[in-house]
Amino acid sequence: MTINTSLAIVILAAGQGKRMYSDLPKVLHRLADKPLLQHVLDTAYQINPTQLYIVHGHGGAQLQTVFAQTNATWVQQAQQLGTGHAVAQVLPYLTDNQQILVLYGDVPLIPAETLKTLCAQTPSNQVGILTMTIDNPTGYGRIVRNDSGQVIQIIEEKEADSTTKAIHEINTGIMLIPVNALRTWLQQLTNHNAQGEYYLTDIIALAVRDGINITTHSPRHEYDVLGVNDRLQLATLERYYQQQQIITLMQQGLSVRDPARLDIRGQVSIGRDVCVDINVIFEGVIKLGNRVTIGANCILKDVEIADDVEIRSHCVLESCTVGANSIIGPFARLRPDTVLAEQVHIGNFVEVKKTTVGIGSKINHLSYIGDSEIGAGVNIGAGTITCNYDGVNKFKTIIEDGAFIGSDTQLVAPVTVGKGATIGAGSTIVHDTPAEKLTLSRAQQITIEQWQKPVKK
Amino acid sequence: MTINTSLAIVILAAGQGKRMYSDLPKVLHRLADKPLLQHVLDTAYQINPTQLYIVHGHGGAQLQTVFAQTNATWVQQAQQLGTGHAVAQVLPYLTDNQQILVLYGDVPLIPAETLKTLCAQTPSNQVGILTMTIDNPTGYGRIVRNDSGQVIQIIEEKEADSTTKAIHEINTGIMLIPVNALRTWLQQLTNHNAQGEYYLTDIIALAVRDGINITTHSPRHEYDVLGVNDRLQLATLERYYQQQQIITLMQQGLSVRDPARLDIRGQVSIGRDVCVDINVIFEGVIKLGNRVTIGANCILKDVEIADDVEIRSHCVLESCTVGANSIIGPFARLRPDTVLAEQVHIGNFVEVKKTTVGIGSKINHLSYIGDSEIGAGVNIGAGTITCNYDGVNKFKTIIEDGAFIGSDTQLVAPVTVGKGATIGAGSTIVHDTPAEKLTLSRAQQITIEQWQKPVKK
Amino acid sequence: MTINTSLAIVILAAGQGKRMYSDLPKVLHRLADKPLLQHVLDTAYQINPTQLYIVHGHGGAQLQTVFAQTNATWVQQAQQLGTGHAVAQVLPYLTDNQQILVLYGDVPLIPAETLKTLCAQTPSNQVGILTMTIDNPTGYGRIVRNDSGQVIQIIEEKEADSTTKAIHEINTGIMLIPVNALRTWLQQLTNHNAQGEYYLTDIIALAVRDGINITTHSPRHEYDVLGVNDRLQLATLERYYQQQQIITLMQQGLSVRDPARLDIRGQVSIGRDVCVDINVIFEGVIKLGNRVTIGANCILKDVEIADDVEIRSHCVLESCTVGANSIIGPFARLRPDTVLAEQVHIGNFVEVKKTTVGIGSKINHLSYIGDSEIGAGVNIGAGTITCNYDGVNKFKTIIEDGAFIGSDTQLVAPVTVGKGATIGAGSTIVHDTPAEKLTLSRAQQITIEQWQKPVKK
Repeated sequence: MTINTSLAIVILAAGQGKRMYSDLPKVLHRLADKPLLQHVLDTAYQINPTQLYIVHGHGGAQLQTVFAQTNATWVQQAQQLGTGHAVAQVLPYLTDNQQILVLYGDVPLIPAETLKTLCAQTPSNQVGILTMTIDNPTGYGRIVRNDSGQVIQIIEEKEADSTTKAIHEINTGIMLIPVNALRTWLQQLTNHNAQGEYYLTDIIALAVRDGINITTHSPRHEYDVLGVNDRLQLATLERYYQQQQIITLMQQGLSVRDPARLDIRGQVSIGRDVCVDINVIFEGVIKLGNRVTIGANCILKDVEIADDVEIRSHCVLESCTVGANSIIGPFARLRPDTVLAEQVHIGNFVEVKKTTVGIGSKINHLSYIGDSEIGAGVNIGAGTITCNYDGVNKFKTIIEDGAFIGSDTQLVAPVTVGKGATIGAGSTIVHDTPAEKLTLSRAQQITIEQWQKPVKK
Repeated sequence: MTINTSLAIVILAAGQGKRMYSDLPKVLHRLADKPLLQHVLDTAYQINPTQLYIVHGHGGAQLQTVFAQTNATWVQQAQQLGTGHAVAQVLPYLTDNQQILVLYGDVPLIPAETLKTLCAQTPSNQVGILTMTIDNPTGYGRIVRNDSGQVIQIIEEKEADSTTKAIHEINTGIMLIPVNALRTWLQQLTNHNAQGEYYLTDIIALAVRDGINITTHSPRHEYDVLGVNDRLQLATLERYYQQQQIITLMQQGLSVRDPARLDIRGQVSIGRDVCVDINVIFEGVIKLGNRVTIGANCILKDVEIADDVEIRSHCVLESCTVGANSIIGPFARLRPDTVLAEQVHIGNFVEVKKTTVGIGSKINHLSYIGDSEIGAGVNIGAGTITCNYDGVNKFKTIIEDGAFIGSDTQLVAPVTVGKGATIGAGSTIVHDTPAEKLTLSRAQQITIEQWQKPVKK
Repeated sequence: MTINTSLAIVILAAGQGKRMYSDLPKVLHRLADKPLLQHVLDTAYQINPTQLYIVHGHGGAQLQTVFAQTNATWVQQAQQLGTGHAVAQVLPYLTDNQQILVLYGDVPLIPAETLKTLCAQTPSNQVGILTMTIDNPTGYGRIVRNDSGQVIQIIEEKEADSTTKAIHEINTGIMLIPVNALRTWLQQLTNHNAQGEYYLTDIIALAVRDGINITTHSPRHEYDVLGVNDRLQLATLERYYQQQQIITLMQQGLSVRDPARLDIRGQVSIGRDVCVDINVIFEGVIKLGNRVTIGANCILKDVEIADDVEIRSHCVLESCTVGANSIIGPFARLRPDTVLAEQVHIGNFVEVKKTTVGIGSKINHLSYIGDSEIGAGVNIGAGTITCNYDGVNKFKTIIEDGAFIGSDTQLVAPVTVGKGATIGAGSTIVHDTPAEKLTLSRAQQITIEQWQKPVKK
């Protein structure tokens, strides 16, 4: 979809973020595990600009490393002399028939729809600004209107007298400006103000002087245009963003026991009648089938879960697939490259890594299974351990269909347990074991008749 | 207690709940782990009606399966033609000297006290309705009163003009009606309205026409009469219900670290000075003795815990009993039919199932103990596993008083460890072991002189 | 810092706290894991009084045991006859040139700054009181002022007429009084009132009679002066206190995913760019280095964590030290006297106790390591257990640098594994093992040809 074929977007991302008390440039701080600037970029791409510019300053090299994939043009603002100065750095790249939309790398939750409306409502030779009427305007630039309601000026807090301070309509900073006029106005900006900065907002008065009409539009929610300047604001937006995502999923039919205690840090898709208990965290790409239940305190990252699976409480799953009708946990950990077929049971204090498990197999208690291929109908006893590592190499364990592994068995890889084989409890299995037979390694049980109990030393 | 010997209650439960996006009929959705309809039934029984009717439509067979135990009469509403039509289905079952109280299967938190007051205040030949004045009445039927304050009509939102829409007193839908008059009125209802439905609320105007006075009463809180139409409303009521329960328990002396982070999905009874940390979930019937402390992130279902027990963080307990002065967890899992005597210690990464444990015994680390009888003063070392399952049968392990089980022992059931016996670490015990003696199975420790370390392949 | 060399502080702590339904005296209930009275004492010491008195009544012996360390003077109020009577018990200890500041053991969050300001603003021969204007003054004593705004009286709720009840400025109870005048006034108090008590507040009217000016000052927040009378109020203050602490840390640069889901029950100091996920609990003294991340649901008590450590979800750490660049968890438990060097990995379902671990060593899966000294570059396989306890004595395990412990090994202490030694999987090590060689104890693997599978019994 193309809204405007001559629209350039510039994202101002040069700030250090002093009040974050951080070694990271501000726009690299994360909201829902995604850098602030990535949120703005994702939104910007939805507007389909012809060009996209990122103005960087503090930590520019770090930014360019993190966003190495973006096709945006990086424009350096070597000194931070104000927003007008920042936008001026982009001017050489722009052509006069364009409009420029100014966004901010630290205003992460601006909705694409709001920007589209601003663009649609603003004629290409005029200026559009996003404004908002809020309860406490302190700190913001105020929108000064004349008696007929037309915007005539924006006055920054630090330049405002008491009459101006009483205005509750504030400038969000987000503006749409015709490039040809912008060139003229930027040249006329001065830094004769309290901050000693070139304010982009001063172009409004210049536009009015030049007879240009100012179009205004407002976002729905204050947090849509809230900038992040400290960790409290970051946390405020994090919670707002979480609530927005959760409401969307609940409207699609997700049951959430406590919407204030669910975190979505990625993309979640759900089937019907999925139920999520308290304190669950979803990260990355999550696909949940029909009637999946996720117990309390589970953390899932990049997992795909088929229909009718029950993930019990206190589980940690990452980069794995769980087949239909399986039961996982509580206290289970599935690590990357775990692929479970249908009706698999993984129980408490069990770790599975880089392993496929066949239909109906069970690993119910206190086991470590890694680098393995496990067939169907296998029963793995409590305390079973695959010894997949000799200190330098990793080897594979294969357990064929229907095998029964006695408790506390060590399977020293590479090793294969044959189909239907049984392993006696407590065995150390170093050679392949034949199908359908009992294999074990076991010392004789003896009793020491003359043994004396230990005494307190 | 009998309030009215001729009171029939009808619960309307025919709705599908489209906005739930669910395969379950709406009233089967769960609040605090109990179906919505069960909440209403439990409340209805507190009013002691002479008869109880459930009008079902969508998913009726499913409802009757889930509520097979109820002695309510099931009445089918084959087509959903409105609330008036729904109530009309029950008319054949009623006698003229009765009053009928109309409740809703998706309004789960109506307090019995509110209904009792409505019944007590409404003369048996008059009509009583529960109304409520709320901030945002949009969507509700409005209560129209005449100049002397008497109710004369209820107008549904979709039929309301702007004057009516400005009324903030709304109809909750809960009504008490004399059956003989109801018969007449229901026959006179029409579906000539925006919805094309027979509105039960239209009987109010008919009653007023017939000179019948309308008694009104209001519940205390808006959520007492909130209906569940989507997952957001369900979650809203869930949190409200949780807060109500938690406040009640705190008023009885329960210490809760964070009342917003406790879930009670059942019945909890407490002794004195019980303290519950964050994110605890109680399910089923929970009995907690004096001075019990429950650590963070624990989930308890159907458990009974004696005085002075400390349940540490991250434990999952189900259908078990814990004796006085015991210490459980962190990271312990007690499964059904676990019975612990006094002063028992169950430590981290330990699973206990279908087992009795005697006074002062300890299972402190990484063990699986199932189908066992453990005496008093037993010490079970880390990594001990009862091999209770041979793939088809389960067998019992008996460990007598004072035994000491060395670490990493497998007890292959059926097997008995005698009184005061010691088992050497790493043993596989397949035969009964004599009392007071050391028993072990152990291969000799050897060192391979010519062994070469593995090299990277 | 000394504000006033003749300031005595008296803390009233005689109340039982009936509405707590507790066997503990009220001021022993805990907020952020510290008794209410301790909060008040800590604040009182910040004012640098010349003397500090605690008036006790209910549970006085218990109080004196818990606060055995304090140098405050204990003054008994044998009968609870009102606040005036309570303060009168302290009179014999005071000298006429002093001022007395009256605090309350159940008002835990009074800020020292507020008290300092009250003291600074009140001339030494006058009376100062902390008052507050609140929305709902019900239950509080009201501040009655004359037309020129001067305080003339405090009237308790139970003595108030409707005009007085309409006053929203309330008495917090905290007062600063010149001792010489107080002697006179206390003698003139009567208990002719609804409660039959001697109200300290009645001295205000007496002071006004004597021409003494009443200075007032207000705290910033209602919760600064809220008293704890029941478990709900205790929980309210707990959450308020938590939020205050968390905001302070966030302003210093701490990233908190959800400020409503973090509990600080002690002192936390942080480096730069520390990030804390949901539901973390900090207890005792916590020191976190730069770039430390703490995963969800972790509980840390008295721990020191160096730079760049990742504590993954579901860990419990107590009285331990974690070296830089280490990775802990998920599901790890570090118990007291665990000292980890740099780059140590402790994985899932691992318990470590009273153990030092050298640089770069790994204990990644299902192990119990206690009373051990582990060198650098050691790899401990899954299911390794140190058998440190023979039922009566504890012994030490030493594992030297570069050793490789095969899975499911039992190390029967006292025992030493030599430098670079390898232990074969499943071994029971009872003797010291030589450096650089393979040591194991293992029975031969055999297959039972004629074995019959178990059949269902």
